[in-house]
Amino acid sequence: MRATTGWAIHGLPDPNQLFAELRQLSADGQGVTRAAYTTSETAALDFIADVAKSYDLDVSRDQAANLVVTLSGQDPLAPCILLGSHLDSVPSGGNYDGAAGVIAGLLCLIRFRRLHQTPPQNIKVLALRGEESPWFDTACLGSRALFGELAGDLSRTHRNTGRSLREHLESVGAAIELIAAGRRLLCTAEVAGYYELHIEQGPVMIERNVPVAVVTGIRGILRLPAIKCVGEEGHSGAVPREMRHDAVFAVVSLLHRMDEHWMKMIGQRQDLVITTGVLSTNPHHHSPSRIAGDVTFSLDVRSFSRPTLEHVQTILLDEMRAIESERGVTFTPGTKYITPPEAMDTRMRSHLMRMAQRHNIPAIEMPSGSGHDAMVFARNGVPSAMIFVRNQNGSHNPSEAMEMSDFLLASELLYQALAEKMV
Amino acid sequence: MRATTGWAIHGLPDPNQLFAELRQLSADGQGVTRAAYTTSETAALDFIADVAKSYDLDVSRDQAANLVVTLSGQDPLAPCILLGSHLDSVPSGGNYDGAAGVIAGLLCLIRFRRLHQTPPQNIKVLALRGEESPWFDTACLGSRALFGELAGDLSRTHRNTGRSLREHLESVGAAIELIAAGRRLLCTAEVAGYYELHIEQGPVMIERNVPVAVVTGIRGILRLPAIKCVGEEGHSGAVPREMRHDAVFAVVSLLHRMDEHWMKMIGQRQDLVITTGVLSTNPHHHSPSRIAGDVTFSLDVRSFSRPTLEHVQTILLDEMRAIESERGVTFTPGTKYITPPEAMDTRMRSHLMRMAQRHNIPAIEMPSGSGHDAMVFARNGVPSAMIFVRNQNGSHNPSEAMEMSDFLLASELLYQALAEKMV
Repeated sequence: MRATTGWAIHGLPDPNQLFAELRQLSADGQGVTRAAYTTSETAALDFIADVAKSYDLDVSRDQAANLVVTLSGQDPLAPCILLGSHLDSVPSGGNYDGAAGVIAGLLCLIRFRRLHQTPPQNIKVLALRGEESPWFDTACLGSRALFGELAGDLSRTHRNTGRSLREHLESVGAAIELIAAGRRLLCTAEVAGYYELHIEQGPVMIERNVPVAVVTGIRGILRLPAIKCVGEEGHSGAVPREMRHDAVFAVVSLLHRMDEHWMKMIGQRQDLVITTGVLSTNPHHHSPSRIAGDVTFSLDVRSFSRPTLEHVQTILLDEMRAIESERGVTFTPGTKYITPPEAMDTRMRSHLMRMAQRHNIPAIEMPSGSGHDAMVFARNGVPSAMIFVRNQNGSHNPSEAMEMSDFLLASELLYQALAEKMV
Repeated sequence: MRATTGWAIHGLPDPNQLFAELRQLSADGQGVTRAAYTTSETAALDFIADVAKSYDLDVSRDQAANLVVTLSGQDPLAPCILLGSHLDSVPSGGNYDGAAGVIAGLLCLIRFRRLHQTPPQNIKVLALRGEESPWFDTACLGSRALFGELAGDLSRTHRNTGRSLREHLESVGAAIELIAAGRRLLCTAEVAGYYELHIEQGPVMIERNVPVAVVTGIRGILRLPAIKCVGEEGHSGAVPREMRHDAVFAVVSLLHRMDEHWMKMIGQRQDLVITTGVLSTNPHHHSPSRIAGDVTFSLDVRSFSRPTLEHVQTILLDEMRAIESERGVTFTPGTKYITPPEAMDTRMRSHLMRMAQRHNIPAIEMPSGSGHDAMVFARNGVPSAMIFVRNQNGSHNPSEAMEMSDFLLASELLYQALAEKMV
C-alpha cells in the first residue's frame, strides 16, 4: 500500500517555497553559507521566526540565542517535546543539512494550528546555532551551550572573522556570563524528549531505496587530526633500501595494517569505519627525488561501540610502535578526541517505527555515522530520537538533493509521532 | 699502509681557500645558491677561470657557455681527456655538489704545471652549467647542450626568473641557433674519455667507512612526478566500508604492494630503490571528516638494470588496474620519464682501481644512485668514469660535509689516472 501524507491542507505554507526563500537568503554563488553566530545564520533564524509569527505561534530566543517556536499542548505543565535541528551550514554547503529538521518542525506546529488540534503536551521547535564544526573547529555549539558545555571553548576563533566565540555569542545576545560559568540553560526535568529530523549524510538509503529511516544510535568518534611521522630525508637514488627511514612508506605500512584490522573487525560483525581524510608530505621540503622526512595525516575512527573505538586505539598505538622499530621512524599521535557513541531512546524509536507502520511510511532502522545535536541531548539525559530523510550526493556540498516527497513522508512520520501519545 | 697524497707542493692553491671563496661568492644566508644560467653561476665560472689564468692555463668558453680550462699534452693531436662536473647548485644547497669535481680537475692541471710535467694527451676541465633539475625542471643542461639534446627544452622557464631557457642561454653567450637546431657542439672523435669526481649523495661510503669509490654505473630512472588517484568524497562517518571509493586507502594499497614487490626483487638480488617523495590529499577539499576524493603522488624508481625498471613499470600499471577494480577508483599515471642506466667504461674503471691500489688509496666499487653529467657523456659514446668522495649529511642541503682529506685522496686518484697512460 502506497503511503500518503496529510500535508495537503489548505493554508499550509508551501515547503518548496520555504526552502527556496531560505536558500536565496544565504546563497553564496556556489551553494549556501550560513556561518555560525553571524548575520547569515541570524537571518535564517529571523526568517523562520517570521513564518512562525505569521501563523500565530509563540516565538522567543533561549539564553544561548537559539530560536524557540512554541505550541501549547493539552497539559501545559507536562514535560514538553523538543523538535530540533540547526540552521548554520558548512562554508558553501547545501540547503538541507540542518534546515530540513527546523522546517519539518515548523510545518508540524502549523499543521496542528491549521487543523485546530492540540497536541498532548507543549511542543517547542529549536532552531539551533553553530552545529557545523568548520566555523570554530568544534561542533554542536548551540546545543552544548544549553547544557553548560561551552565554558572551555569561548576563546576559539571564528574561521572567517578571527573573533572569539565569546564575542560572537555576545553579539547575538547570548547570556555569556551563564555560558562562561558552565551553567545549564535547559532544565531536563521539563523535557520529555527530543526529536531531530535530518537528511542522511551517506548513501545507505539511496542504496537500499528507502525514503525514511529511524536512527538506532549515533556512532562515537575517535579522532586524531594531525598524526606526525618523522623519518629521515635523503636522495631518492642514492640511499639503499636498508638505510632508509622513509616517512611515506612508514605511514603507508601503518595505514595498510589499519585497513587489514578494519576488514577483519567487520568480518567479526563489529561496526567500524576508518578515514584518513588529510595526508601530506611536507610541502616546504618535498620533492619527487627526495625521500620524505615527514608526513602528517589525520585519522577519524567511528563506531557504534565504545569498546571497538578503544580497541582500535590500542591497535593503532601498537602498530605505530612496531613500525617505529622496523623502520627507524617516530610517530607523534598529537591531539586526540573521543566522542562516545550515543544510543537513541528505545521507547521513542519504537513509537516512531509503530507510527511508520500504521501510516504506511516505508522506513528502516539504521545507525547515524555522523554526529548531530541529538547526541548532545542524549548524553545529557534527554530521551532522543532521529528521523533520516533520503538524500542524494552526500552533505556538506552544494549538490545535496533531498526529494520533497521524501521530506514530506519523513515529516508525516514526525507529525504522527507528536499527535499520538507515546505508549 | 696509510695513503699519502702528493698535494704538498709549493705554490699550489690551498683547496680549503678555493672552496671558501666559492662559498662566499654564492652564500645565501642558509647554504649556497648558484642558479643555472644566471649571474650567480657565471660568477662561479669566472672565479675558476681567474684562478686558472693566474696559473697560466688556457681559458675559454664552449658554444654552450660552459667554462673550458686546457692543459696541452705531449701529443696535442691525440684525443683529449675531459674532467668535468658542474658549478650550479640547487636552491640553498651545499658547496661541494658539483664544485668538488671542477676544483679537483683544476688542481690536477695546476699540479702538472707546477711540477713542469706534461700529461700524455691534452686535458680539458669542463665547468658545466645547469646540471641541477630544480631550475628548469630538467637536469644536465650544460652537458646535454654539447650533444644537441636541448632543442626540445628551450621554452622551459626558470624557477626564479620566469624567463625561458632560450633567453638564459643567449644571455650567457651560448650559440643559441646551433643549440635550437640540435647540433652537436662536441666532436666525440676528439675525446678519449670523461672523468667526473663528485661527492657521494647517499650514506653508503660513511656506512662502509671508505673515503673514495670508483663508480660502476649510474642507476636509470623511471619517474612519474604526479600520479593522480580519483575516488569519491563522502562523510567520514556516514559511508559504510563497502560503499567507499577512498582515494587515500587506494593509494596506500598501491604503495604497500609496490613496497612488497620491491622487497621481493631485492631478495632476488635485483638493484632497485623506490621513492614516493610527494604525496598529498587535495588541500582545497580535504578534511579529517571527509573521505578523500583525490590524492596526488610521485613515484621515482631507480635501478642499475633497464629490464628491472621496465618490470617495475609493468607491475605498477597492473596493480593500478587491480586496485581500480577492487576499490572503484581511477589512477591517472600522468607524465612518465625514463632515463636509461649507464654503465661506466670498463677500461677506465680498471685503470682507476689499479691506480688506487698502486698508490694505497682505499677505494671500493659502487653504483651511483643519482644522475650526473657523466651519464650524458656515456650515452653519447664518450667513455666515462666517476670517482666518488665520502660526504656526510647527503647532498642538496646546506649541511653537505666533505672532509678535505677525503677530497685530496680522491683528487690524488684522479691525478694519478691522468699521469699514467691507460693500458
